[in-house]
Amino acid sequence: MKKFLNKPEDFVDEMLEGIYRAHPEVTFTDGDMRCFVTAKPVPGKVGIVTGGGSGHLPLFLGYVGKNMLDGAGVGGVFQSPSSDQLLNVTKYVDQGAGVLYLYGNYTGDIMNFDMAGELAELDDIETATVVGNDDVASSVVGEEHKRRGVAGIFFLYKVAGAAAAQMKPLAEVKRLTEKAKSQVRTMGVALSPCIVPEVGKPSFQIGDDEMEIGMGIHGEPGISRKALEPVDAVVEEMASKIFAEQSYEKGDEVAILMNGLGATPLEELYIAYRRLGQLLDEKEVKIRHVWLGEFATSMEMAGFSISIMKLDDELEPLVAAEVDTPFFKHFAG
Amino acid sequence: MKKFLNKPEDFVDEMLEGIYRAHPEVTFTDGDMRCFVTAKPVPGKVGIVTGGGSGHLPLFLGYVGKNMLDGAGVGGVFQSPSSDQLLNVTKYVDQGAGVLYLYGNYTGDIMNFDMAGELAELDDIETATVVGNDDVASSVVGEEHKRRGVAGIFFLYKVAGAAAAQMKPLAEVKRLTEKAKSQVRTMGVALSPCIVPEVGKPSFQIGDDEMEIGMGIHGEPGISRKALEPVDAVVEEMASKIFAEQSYEKGDEVAILMNGLGATPLEELYIAYRRLGQLLDEKEVKIRHVWLGEFATSMEMAGFSISIMKLDDELEPLVAAEVDTPFFKHFAG
Repeated sequence: MKKFLNKPEDFVDEMLEGIYRAHPEVTFTDGDMRCFVTAKPVPGKVGIVTGGGSGHLPLFLGYVGKNMLDGAGVGGVFQSPSSDQLLNVTKYVDQGAGVLYLYGNYTGDIMNFDMAGELAELDDIETATVVGNDDVASSVVGEEHKRRGVAGIFFLYKVAGAAAAQMKPLAEVKRLTEKAKSQVRTMGVALSPCIVPEVGKPSFQIGDDEMEIGMGIHGEPGISRKALEPVDAVVEEMASKIFAEQSYEKGDEVAILMNGLGATPLEELYIAYRRLGQLLDEKEVKIRHVWLGEFATSMEMAGFSISIMKLDDELEPLVAAEVDTPFFKHFAG
Repeated sequence: MKKFLNKPEDFVDEMLEGIYRAHPEVTFTDGDMRCFVTAKPVPGKVGIVTGGGSGHLPLFLGYVGKNMLDGAGVGGVFQSPSSDQLLNVTKYVDQGAGVLYLYGNYTGDIMNFDMAGELAELDDIETATVVGNDDVASSVVGEEHKRRGVAGIFFLYKVAGAAAAQMKPLAEVKRLTEKAKSQVRTMGVALSPCIVPEVGKPSFQIGDDEMEIGMGIHGEPGISRKALEPVDAVVEEMASKIFAEQSYEKGDEVAILMNGLGATPLEELYIAYRRLGQLLDEKEVKIRHVWLGEFATSMEMAGFSISIMKLDDELEPLVAAEVDTPFFKHFAG
């Protein structure tokens, strides 16, 4: 296992120590480093809480900050945070306007967030939930509720965060986030596995000349494994799956997230984006916003994902809003 | 070769196509995509030009933007840009106040920048030069002029960019950048090689349980190769080399760059930073600024570098200044 670490069982807590050292604008509550919260809660604002397993930085905690999220439950590598941790984050984050739970569609996370929400209700904290499920490879149309949440949750964070920052009430923040969710689709491709520190061996095997299209960010099986092709062909296949889901017509506007899964160089992401841009040009669809880089990773996995969000006049300004978190910064205008 | 690309010989130009598509705030001059410049030159400001081989994103071109650089000559992977390309960038960037050349200490780059500077003089464009050489592993004290420039040039970009944005004259921008240079030291460690697309095989061989301390970002030999140790021990060894070069006393303030070389997960960088922070705590040195992430890479190489810059009242505000480039954003204050 070729990783920079000390004891595998200390991986998450030592990572958190480093993060708290580096970024005084975030802190933790209840004496538990895994109850990750903003150091600057905004009175009267709807709180937004996410959470999930470690090993995906900057997901999930990296989006806690100005105009985005307020707290995150931090699990072990690829493990859910506990309901107690989520409850403690909820109590800290609640500023009297209620809390939106916004996380990815994984069984353990759903169970623990639901339980935290029930316990929060006993403390008279109102909660609402939106579960990201943008991975089109993980289930067919009509069974979207079975789909995994992957990198596209970035757009939901942006919309929810901007709406809450405008002091909209919980029901409205939820409505806008649900609307954003309905407009986001993601497809991924992987070339190599990652190693969970406490496991110590690769999460799956793949041939030296193979790729897997549609693989999940924990190494869940995708929809096809085959010989690596030129990246233009890879992008065409990924985009065609997304285009088959929703209409993208002349004059439509979209936001794009080209997300590296960990080991894939930025150079390669830009080459892939070039082809995606050509495909959208052919449809006369305008790319209004694009972000490229590492937004939702699987440690040292090689691969990338494409997320496309369709915009309208209501969603676009929320996607465009200024953001300042330790891991993600965006200047508006 | 497991990379997302089309033809290896198109790697750099297709990457540039993707970058220009994504970021309208940068463009190119003289009809040559490798003559990379800001789309918004500032009249009367000293221009700052960098350049070097591709394969290091966000280095070099990624720092062209507001309050940082104005142009970059883009070479092939690990190759220098030509003197003609650098001259064309210089002509575009010059706004009547002269141009600072700021790049890393590699023979080809020095030759081509020097030639471009001589040709620019014939066009009555004043140039000055600062050559980054922060890699302490690459030569001994007293022979600093033989040292390679690596990730620490990030701090020189920040200082030079902020000084030029304050409309300081060329001589003063150069003086401040030289001063910053004297205060920056870097040490790196690598676990795995990268593959140059047109070569098609790894740039060096290294055992499954080995690390190389002091390796350069093109795979140049370091100062020791040995079995991988716990990251705390690795950081202690790296930091001790830097601490041996300069005094870091109680009350001193520093800026830190923890730079991933490509494949190393952000989680591991934070674990490493945690130990560095402890070491500086022991010295009662204050970390005033820290950036963690990928700032100067070697494509998919696994490894990281630590850069430390000593601050004073003159340099600190320049390091702290707000920056907005397509690849790096920093909110001031």
